[in-house]
Amino acid sequence: TRLAVVGAGSVGATMAYAALMRGAARSVALYDINAAKVEAEALDIGHGIQFMPMADVTGSDDIAVCSGADVVVVTAGAKQRPDQSRLDLAEATVGLVRKIMPQLVEVAPNAVYVMVTNPVDIVTYAALKVSGLPPHQLFGSGTVLDSSRLRYLLAQHTGVAVQNIHAYIAGEHGDSEIPLWSSASIGSVPLTEWPGMPGPDGPVGRLGAADRERIAEEVVNSAYRIIAGKGATNYAVALAGSRIIEAVLNDERRILPVSSLLDDYKGISDVCLSVPSVVGSTGVGARLDIAMSREEHEGLRRSADAVRAVARRFGL
Amino acid sequence: TRLAVVGAGSVGATMAYAALMRGAARSVALYDINAAKVEAEALDIGHGIQFMPMADVTGSDDIAVCSGADVVVVTAGAKQRPDQSRLDLAEATVGLVRKIMPQLVEVAPNAVYVMVTNPVDIVTYAALKVSGLPPHQLFGSGTVLDSSRLRYLLAQHTGVAVQNIHAYIAGEHGDSEIPLWSSASIGSVPLTEWPGMPGPDGPVGRLGAADRERIAEEVVNSAYRIIAGKGATNYAVALAGSRIIEAVLNDERRILPVSSLLDDYKGISDVCLSVPSVVGSTGVGARLDIAMSREEHEGLRRSADAVRAVARRFGL
Amino acid sequence: TRLAVVGAGSVGATMAYAALMRGAARSVALYDINAAKVEAEALDIGHGIQFMPMADVTGSDDIAVCSGADVVVVTAGAKQRPDQSRLDLAEATVGLVRKIMPQLVEVAPNAVYVMVTNPVDIVTYAALKVSGLPPHQLFGSGTVLDSSRLRYLLAQHTGVAVQNIHAYIAGEHGDSEIPLWSSASIGSVPLTEWPGMPGPDGPVGRLGAADRERIAEEVVNSAYRIIAGKGATNYAVALAGSRIIEAVLNDERRILPVSSLLDDYKGISDVCLSVPSVVGSTGVGARLDIAMSREEHEGLRRSADAVRAVARRFGL
Amino acid sequence: TRLAVVGAGSVGATMAYAALMRGAARSVALYDINAAKVEAEALDIGHGIQFMPMADVTGSDDIAVCSGADVVVVTAGAKQRPDQSRLDLAEATVGLVRKIMPQLVEVAPNAVYVMVTNPVDIVTYAALKVSGLPPHQLFGSGTVLDSSRLRYLLAQHTGVAVQNIHAYIAGEHGDSEIPLWSSASIGSVPLTEWPGMPGPDGPVGRLGAADRERIAEEVVNSAYRIIAGKGATNYAVALAGSRIIEAVLNDERRILPVSSLLDDYKGISDVCLSVPSVVGSTGVGARLDIAMSREEHEGLRRSADAVRAVARRFGL
Ligand SMILES: NC(=O)c1ccc[n+]([C@@H]2O[C@H](COP(=O)([O-])OP(=O)(O)OC[C@H]3O[C@@H](n4cnc5c(N)ncnc54)[C@H](O)[C@@H]3O)[C@@H](O)[C@H]2O)c1
Ligand SMILES: NC(=O)c1ccc[n+]([C@@H]2O[C@H](COP(=O)([O-])OP(=O)(O)OC[C@H]3O[C@@H](n4cnc5c(N)ncnc54)[C@H](O)[C@@H]3O)[C@@H](O)[C@H]2O)c1
Ligand SMILES: NC(=O)c1ccc[n+]([C@@H]2O[C@H](COP(=O)([O-])OP(=O)(O)OC[C@H]3O[C@@H](n4cnc5c(N)ncnc54)[C@H](O)[C@@H]3O)[C@@H](O)[C@H]2O)c1
Ligand SMILES: NC(=O)c1ccc[n+]([C@@H]2O[C@H](COP(=O)([O-])OP(=O)(O)OC[C@H]3O[C@@H](n4cnc5c(N)ncnc54)[C@H](O)[C@@H]3O)[C@@H](O)[C@H]2O)c1
Repeated sequence: TRLAVVGAGSVGATMAYAALMRGAARSVALYDINAAKVEAEALDIGHGIQFMPMADVTGSDDIAVCSGADVVVVTAGAKQRPDQSRLDLAEATVGLVRKIMPQLVEVAPNAVYVMVTNPVDIVTYAALKVSGLPPHQLFGSGTVLDSSRLRYLLAQHTGVAVQNIHAYIAGEHGDSEIPLWSSASIGSVPLTEWPGMPGPDGPVGRLGAADRERIAEEVVNSAYRIIAGKGATNYAVALAGSRIIEAVLNDERRILPVSSLLDDYKGISDVCLSVPSVVGSTGVGARLDIAMSREEHEGLRRSADAVRAVARRFGL
Repeated sequence: TRLAVVGAGSVGATMAYAALMRGAARSVALYDINAAKVEAEALDIGHGIQFMPMADVTGSDDIAVCSGADVVVVTAGAKQRPDQSRLDLAEATVGLVRKIMPQLVEVAPNAVYVMVTNPVDIVTYAALKVSGLPPHQLFGSGTVLDSSRLRYLLAQHTGVAVQNIHAYIAGEHGDSEIPLWSSASIGSVPLTEWPGMPGPDGPVGRLGAADRERIAEEVVNSAYRIIAGKGATNYAVALAGSRIIEAVLNDERRILPVSSLLDDYKGISDVCLSVPSVVGSTGVGARLDIAMSREEHEGLRRSADAVRAVARRFGL
Repeated sequence: TRLAVVGAGSVGATMAYAALMRGAARSVALYDINAAKVEAEALDIGHGIQFMPMADVTGSDDIAVCSGADVVVVTAGAKQRPDQSRLDLAEATVGLVRKIMPQLVEVAPNAVYVMVTNPVDIVTYAALKVSGLPPHQLFGSGTVLDSSRLRYLLAQHTGVAVQNIHAYIAGEHGDSEIPLWSSASIGSVPLTEWPGMPGPDGPVGRLGAADRERIAEEVVNSAYRIIAGKGATNYAVALAGSRIIEAVLNDERRILPVSSLLDDYKGISDVCLSVPSVVGSTGVGARLDIAMSREEHEGLRRSADAVRAVARRFGL
Repeated sequence: TRLAVVGAGSVGATMAYAALMRGAARSVALYDINAAKVEAEALDIGHGIQFMPMADVTGSDDIAVCSGADVVVVTAGAKQRPDQSRLDLAEATVGLVRKIMPQLVEVAPNAVYVMVTNPVDIVTYAALKVSGLPPHQLFGSGTVLDSSRLRYLLAQHTGVAVQNIHAYIAGEHGDSEIPLWSSASIGSVPLTEWPGMPGPDGPVGRLGAADRERIAEEVVNSAYRIIAGKGATNYAVALAGSRIIEAVLNDERRILPVSSLLDDYKGISDVCLSVPSVVGSTGVGARLDIAMSREEHEGLRRSADAVRAVARRFGL
């Protein structure tokens, strides 16, 4: 199995590293326009091969390095600056997508494409239009990262293992995203009815409406906080990306909130947005018809409108 | 971290093997009355150490080998014969528990105890009475295995990754066990409303009442079928056991359907039964107050009565 | 990647289990003439899938289940009885090989074949003759297991991690096998010059000639001891087998002492014996020209003669 | 088990990430004087917890976060600038060590200390003097990284799996380091006698003196090349660090070329340098008495003199 990562910045290089450590792919290619950087990243990762499952890794500024890839992950782009909103980054990035996608599809026509570059929902939509690929073959990493942030904060708050907390964030990967509280659960207990766990002075870790609101805000803010603190986010997104890559390469048919082209999903069409979807070797499959509260449905619609408006601005 | 496994039969030895392969414990002790067998099992596992995370493994017929254990898993007992129901095995096994528990508690007073020997709910109850341990410190592996069987069959039927199927079996580890359909979900879709996935001729993998009933029966029968075919079950139970062991050793606070002493759980008391519970370094904590349909609640009550009746028969 | 395991006995089933736990293959097929058993083993393993990397596992008594395999491991055969020498088992097994190999090659003509059934050196030779496969495409697990036993005992004796002990056993997988002491090392220190490690009363864990002899005997005897104690050996051989499988499926080009057809290896020809060899996706490659003491070379020649004589007895 | 990482820069944060992904520690503390950065790194890593073995991770600018650590890894320091030699960085760093070590030893007196900050041999020596810790309890990561680079290049050159290539670099982690060719081996073949592997036009991947010299130079230069290309090295050093951490936490007694205080090692004393040494739960144990060619021995002595001279310059 062969993975190509386009863009060897903090996100791309760390994703290659995480995927190799997890044994996700036997062969990893890094492509970047910065030859010195991409070779340095591949070399630095390669030096650690003896501590990882067997694999080989190559870095190059020649796009041919992506040939024969089963999955192509696109992380090329500009780093988000502390003062920049995600949507502000869009224009230059759409240009990059127009340039790079035709070249990629030429060398790796059968790969499944996973867009990570922000604003990911716009980038995914643009990449679909530019490439002409069928909508199942290309999607964005969407809110997989945001959902893992949500689950982490809920695990911290409740004291329950993160693996038992089932909650998705849907919509835009960005400020208008919506946590799907009404369908979330802990164990098999609806999250909104979670009674907390017995503590010395009564139940601890309850999840009232105020707690949920605070946690949802923390999810949105944590990206900004991380960027303010370290200039980029890379560790968690690399693992989220590796999870998606594994779902494709192993045909896992996992349910993941990736960003894909919606076609009458609860009345929403012609926009790329994240909803829980089945991901396997052919790319993105069924979008799950999750029950939503009226508020959640409204939020999703608003998110769709916001993303669509930006896309239109770029003539997409 | 130190794990002691009591009984080096198919289940105990395979569980030690699985736990070592998963890096669950740094040191594993096997104890069995059959000295030649327990030494052979420890030797056979030890020979594979170079292919596993660093650990050491010892086998002995001297109970002192269990000293200092953080977790003691009890699998000692008689193999279930093809024609035997699980409850029929009880009498001899209760005798074994009476003999072995005081010795174990003497050498490993602070360990968390996980009972696996069948009939596991009776054995857990007996072990609690005999040992005098506080109810959080000793529990049974219960329906963790049965739930994994259920999830496996549901994954096969629906074509969705097993990790996204959330469903528990509660009650007796045995014929009267109850799948908790009403609280089960796939992704965040209630399992009873799962619409199937789009196939060439309409949705596939739907889960009507008849499908659910067939799958529930298959779970109960598969233990019998495996015993008929290979004389024992060991592979899946070893992994289920390792999952429990890891939850304790790493203080994961995982929700697992283990068998513990119930005290007014939905009106049920003084019996060991499986319900989804939080498992961490102190043993079994909060039992989750899962919403049940009237049928499910009835089933759980009947299961409690059945198990309690057997316990009484043995003077417990 | 697809793995087929022929023979779902203790060795075959445990090897499928270990390979799945290690994520060695995405798809595992078990084939056995005993339909009830092979289905039970596959079911028991399948029930644990949720605790392992994504994979699917099928069991069948129809050889077609092996179609499309990248690696076929042959473990079908009779269990070694406590009183039986390995060579005594040969006759019936050679018959089995004659029957089964043509069927396997028909459904999986491009697979790499790994023979495990004992006497493995005879079985490998017979399988090569019967199948007509090129010598690189079929080999035996040989002394990979014996070498891991040797390294384990040396690690125990010296107190050094088993990963830093480099020592091979060559020759027959059986009584005439030879530890290659003269080329063995610990760290980069020749094993025969290992000074021990400082202890309170002088160096501990030295490796004089008497220690080495005792350890070599223990390796040979431990198989008998395990069979006497538990009736079979399965845990370590399953891991050794999975290591070989991974070397092939990931094209690792690992050096492993597998049993292959020798062609003027230090003057030895026309016999299958274990010598350190490079194993990758095309099967067995270069046999390493390891420096041997005169005694070791003599031992290897004697081992070759012993194995060849048995082969001739069966008209091979 | 608890790991503290001091300095949450590229190296420290990536090392925490790698250690968590490998399940090396149950609890990881990051400490840095830059509060915003260390919190951002811990948050970014924490968001990925659901994709890793159970663990918790905290970041703080309060040194108390290191309390109770079993291992403390020190990576605090200045990033190496492209034009700077490793030894040039020393002065400021020695000051940092004088400040930070007493504080660390106060909160974590029983931890094993692993120094990574460059120039690592000087820093290790300074940390020993300043802390007064016994020489076995504190050592530097030394040439573990350099050795993994050497093995990687040798694997690429010969086409053999990196796991079968046994070669150490000894001496200074820096320009005067020495590959120990005369004791190196591939499989059990002395590296200097490696005949290559059969290719279509004769043996490929031979290792003549010129090849060895070129590869040794590449090892030294690759650090500079990576720093020139990406501004830092972090991926491989993080894995090398995790390997060392695991050797301590699991008491693996692994042989690793760490930098420790030498006391008449082949006549060399009172300097910290890397030689293959046994690493376990008490820190660094026996230094292996590896056979060296006269050239290698000379090189090691020169390396010792160079490092000692620098140490003296800083009044150590
Ligand atoms: N979707 C998510 O969840 C998520 C999370 C984090 C970051 N991101 C996004 O990922 C992207 C990358 O972030 P980063 O921190 O790695 O940035 P970075 O600046 O570190 O790396 C970007 C890399 O892309 C390369 N590049 C630029 N143009 C290219 C081209 N035409 N072809 C090939 N390579 C090219 C650059 O040389 C650089 O190495 C950003 O858009 C960021 O917002 C997305
Ligand atoms: N709870 C579950 O999910 C589950 C699943 C499978 C099996 N089991 C149960 O696990 C138990 C073990 O099954 P098995 O297949 O390994 O049986 P087995 O017969 O292979 O092994 C039992 C071992 O216990 C040993 N033993 C007997 N008395 C002992 C004593 N007093 N002290 C120490 N050791 C003693 C025996 O020597 C034997 O090695 C059975 O009760 C079986 O029903 C439970
Ligand atoms: N090479 C090694 O290092 C090594 C180590 C251990 C065991 N072994 C050998 O492995 C073999 C298997 O050992 P085991 O303990 O699993 O034995 P076992 O008796 O448990 O299993 C053998 C299986 O082969 C099946 N079988 C018999 N004939 C068959 C046929 N024609 N087609 C398909 N399946 C058939 C049987 O039904 C049985 O399930 C033995 O020969 C043993 O000596 C080799
Ligand atoms: N030994 C090796 O094999 C090896 C390999 C690579 C890098 N390194 C060395 O590791 C060190 C770190 O490299 P980096 O790339 O992570 O640098 P970096 O600049 O990215 O990070 C250094 C961190 O240390 C912190 N720091 C500074 N003073 C501190 C103090 N008093 N207390 C706590 N934290 C403090 C800084 O805030 C910064 O976050 C350098 O010395 C580098 O040369 C060693």
